[in-house]
Amino acid sequence: MSRHATKLFSDRKVSAELVGDLQDLIRHAATAFNVQPWRVVVVESDAQKEALSEAAYGQPQITSCSHLFVYCANTDLETLVSRLEVKSTEAGLPAESVAAYIDMVQGFTAGLTGDNRLAWAQRQTYLALGNGINGAKSLGFDSCPMEGFDSARFAEILGLSDNLIPTVLMPIGYADSDPRGKLRFDREDMFFQSA
Amino acid sequence: MSRHATKLFSDRKVSAELVGDLQDLIRHAATAFNVQPWRVVVVESDAQKEALSEAAYGQPQITSCSHLFVYCANTDLETLVSRLEVKSTEAGLPAESVAAYIDMVQGFTAGLTGDNRLAWAQRQTYLALGNGINGAKSLGFDSCPMEGFDSARFAEILGLSDNLIPTVLMPIGYADSDPRGKLRFDREDMFFQSA
Repeated sequence: MSRHATKLFSDRKVSAELVGDLQDLIRHAATAFNVQPWRVVVVESDAQKEALSEAAYGQPQITSCSHLFVYCANTDLETLVSRLEVKSTEAGLPAESVAAYIDMVQGFTAGLTGDNRLAWAQRQTYLALGNGINGAKSLGFDSCPMEGFDSARFAEILGLSDNLIPTVLMPIGYADSDPRGKLRFDREDMFFQSA
Repeated sequence: MSRHATKLFSDRKVSAELVGDLQDLIRHAATAFNVQPWRVVVVESDAQKEALSEAAYGQPQITSCSHLFVYCANTDLETLVSRLEVKSTEAGLPAESVAAYIDMVQGFTAGLTGDNRLAWAQRQTYLALGNGINGAKSLGFDSCPMEGFDSARFAEILGLSDNLIPTVLMPIGYADSDPRGKLRFDREDMFFQSA
């Protein structure tokens, strides 16, 4: 409840240990069929933040943050499902269960074509984002989810392969600005009881 | 980290107070520009769960849960932005700031046309879902995010207006099944440091 989108960060860096802890919280986000169709680029160098800042309309979070997490949807579901098969086998699951499970997931991913594939991967990415922003606060630092940036330009600057689509940004650090009030609609505006 | 997708729920009901607390955690999910483009239908009656179960391939979570949260993306962004304007004014923000803010948000939402509008609203809905599933665990009960259901049929059964698109389900309750191991890729598979 105390999480806010931080508009400006102080000079204080988030420790490598806390960054690792945050990565683990993100990694454990819910994901349909365990597919985990996303990857995150972690940007720490000032030079690269500067370069990316131009592709994010100069918003000050990009250059003032400690680390910039670039959440990318990963549309190469086939590779992910193969990896899932390996991991499931390594986890000691019975071969038949693994085969049946992988068959089911492959059936599902094969049906995700065109725009649907990216849209689905992006929705999963937002679950990872949610764990990231809540996780950062739970670990004692701040973040700012940001959709306003040029995805194609980010991919180019970061040299990403075609299957990774920059989807949402999450600069992290320690806030150097007062949180603005959270403006939320009322319970009765957002929930209704079915008849 | 201890959250798991619950495949079967016990008979124990989640109290009305806890359901309200969960709604508040969901309500405070991050949302771009504060637009909050989603609504949740809360289904409690057995008859309705039965009716919906058929449209969710008979998965036992639907009928065994205490409450079924049906997260709907809300594509009527214009109404939401109007409500945001009223809320901002009521919150005592200066009239010029409100006007500038609403102008900016209207510019953004006007650019969200066709499939992009629904895709965007659905991504925001997944942030609300993330707060819901993590929030349930933090409040001491369980949940199961579910994408496998017939959205159009749900809308019909629930009598939803056209702007509300059932996007993801979240039955809640107390688990009556052992959690399955969480299968997650390694840190190095999911994160990479930019050069």
